[in-house]
Amino acid sequence: MPFIKGLFTPLSLLMAQPIAVAIHGGAGNLTPHTLPTSKVQEHEAYLKSVVEEAYHLLEEGRLALEVVEIAVRRLEDAGYFNAGRGAVLNEKGFVQLDASIMDGKTRRSGAVAAVRATGNPVTLARLVMERTNHVLIVGEGADSLAKLWALPPLRNDYIPHASPVWTQGTVGAVALDKYGNLAAATSTGGIVGKKVGRVGDSPIIGAGTYAENGLIALSATGHGEYFIRSVLAYDIAARLRYAKASPAQAIEEAFKDRLESIGGTGGVIAVTPKGEVLFYFNTPGMYRAGKDAQGRLIVATFR
Amino acid sequence: MPFIKGLFTPLSLLMAQPIAVAIHGGAGNLTPHTLPTSKVQEHEAYLKSVVEEAYHLLEEGRLALEVVEIAVRRLEDAGYFNAGRGAVLNEKGFVQLDASIMDGKTRRSGAVAAVRATGNPVTLARLVMERTNHVLIVGEGADSLAKLWALPPLRNDYIPHASPVWTQGTVGAVALDKYGNLAAATSTGGIVGKKVGRVGDSPIIGAGTYAENGLIALSATGHGEYFIRSVLAYDIAARLRYAKASPAQAIEEAFKDRLESIGGTGGVIAVTPKGEVLFYFNTPGMYRAGKDAQGRLIVATFR
Repeated sequence: MPFIKGLFTPLSLLMAQPIAVAIHGGAGNLTPHTLPTSKVQEHEAYLKSVVEEAYHLLEEGRLALEVVEIAVRRLEDAGYFNAGRGAVLNEKGFVQLDASIMDGKTRRSGAVAAVRATGNPVTLARLVMERTNHVLIVGEGADSLAKLWALPPLRNDYIPHASPVWTQGTVGAVALDKYGNLAAATSTGGIVGKKVGRVGDSPIIGAGTYAENGLIALSATGHGEYFIRSVLAYDIAARLRYAKASPAQAIEEAFKDRLESIGGTGGVIAVTPKGEVLFYFNTPGMYRAGKDAQGRLIVATFR
Repeated sequence: MPFIKGLFTPLSLLMAQPIAVAIHGGAGNLTPHTLPTSKVQEHEAYLKSVVEEAYHLLEEGRLALEVVEIAVRRLEDAGYFNAGRGAVLNEKGFVQLDASIMDGKTRRSGAVAAVRATGNPVTLARLVMERTNHVLIVGEGADSLAKLWALPPLRNDYIPHASPVWTQGTVGAVALDKYGNLAAATSTGGIVGKKVGRVGDSPIIGAGTYAENGLIALSATGHGEYFIRSVLAYDIAARLRYAKASPAQAIEEAFKDRLESIGGTGGVIAVTPKGEVLFYFNTPGMYRAGKDAQGRLIVATFR
């Protein structure tokens, strides 16, 4: 009887609605020698709280798209990572932020780059997706929209400008909701001392961010120029679709064949349609956390 | 005897060094009803001259990277197409240009977006590739570099602002040189009335431009947002590599499965490592011209 089935919520039905989330706070030269233990504990506690909140929202039935935006906002607001409040400075001594978000259900995407007017570029990216006919808006145009839509401003006196030692890379989130939707979002302050207007892979769909229902959700971190030249995120997705690789194989081979072959370093996080969580990086460390369909929690920084 | 072989330059040796080039001036609602015959003849004569010059440079032994830059400069300078001198205006009534270039030998790339200071953004993109550690630079940062490197300025009084009827899309070039190198470049004024700072697929490696030796060189034109969401150029490359599709199959299937499934329109040009030239578009027309390894010339606008 269907009614009784629903009442008892059998394991088979739960398994049919897997949820999962993974986040990162950047890959780089993160080792026990470069990072004090107290900092690692503080950052990992923060990552854990973000993942637990995100997972809880997914359990409540929130959409993957909403959850990755919320998770990335928390990481932007933390000040610990190279994004939002914690963003590094460019060659002229000011912050320019990049971010993107992608809905795996529709492949709709929003992205912004070289933004100065808000500390939550991921939300600006989402609004670009929802309120304009465009995908990517940069510079003053993006700043004007942040003001028009009354986003929280980025005040320079508010930015801690955390030491580059622990502001490697970028932040990002990927999620699978109970309706089978995948989503991904990435946000960054870019490279320390970058040229004015330099844009990395974070706001580039297919390079630093990609999500497609039934396939995979990905967010990358690392030396962005190499990820752009490798079209890394979409190369992983293409290996799944066209070469029928497993997610772990696809990620490892994409890094070896595409990224490392030209000297690129960094990492990626992924969530699959089954609710698996994957982390990969070729740097000493990557701030990362995730919770998979079985409810298994992972929080780590080093190898 | 090797010496005699070289002296007579047998056909087999010539065939081992195929060259090819293809260019486009944008895809869109180009029909005998929307375009006066005189305009079509004028534009096609121009496309023919650009292709003949490019092919001649390849015969002389110039690199594919140099040739695609030169060809795109000609198209930017023409004023006939939506790029450089002919670029359309954004919502605020000024021009913002996007361009990219990619070297298939090294996968090195350069790109610029939302540029106002030069009418040859493809050259700025090449200099970003060669003189900085970055791939993509946007807005004022890109404008500063254009001035620093003394590129020809874009004077607003110089722009003909050709009617949107015949400024569909974008311009681009792809080439194979006699050393087996592939290269691609794309340049655009974007969409008429676009928001300030809007960036399309032209400067995005993997969306509007991609080149990789041994695989393919591609330049796209059309409604850029859909090409970004489809990661269209790299999807074609991935079908060649991972699904072992033929170039014609890969292009057709990428358009059907990835672009048309979400409502995208436009076109693409390609050159293969064997020196084949391919054109594909799902719009009424695409300004296009090419010359393949057999020396066959194609110049056309309509289907």
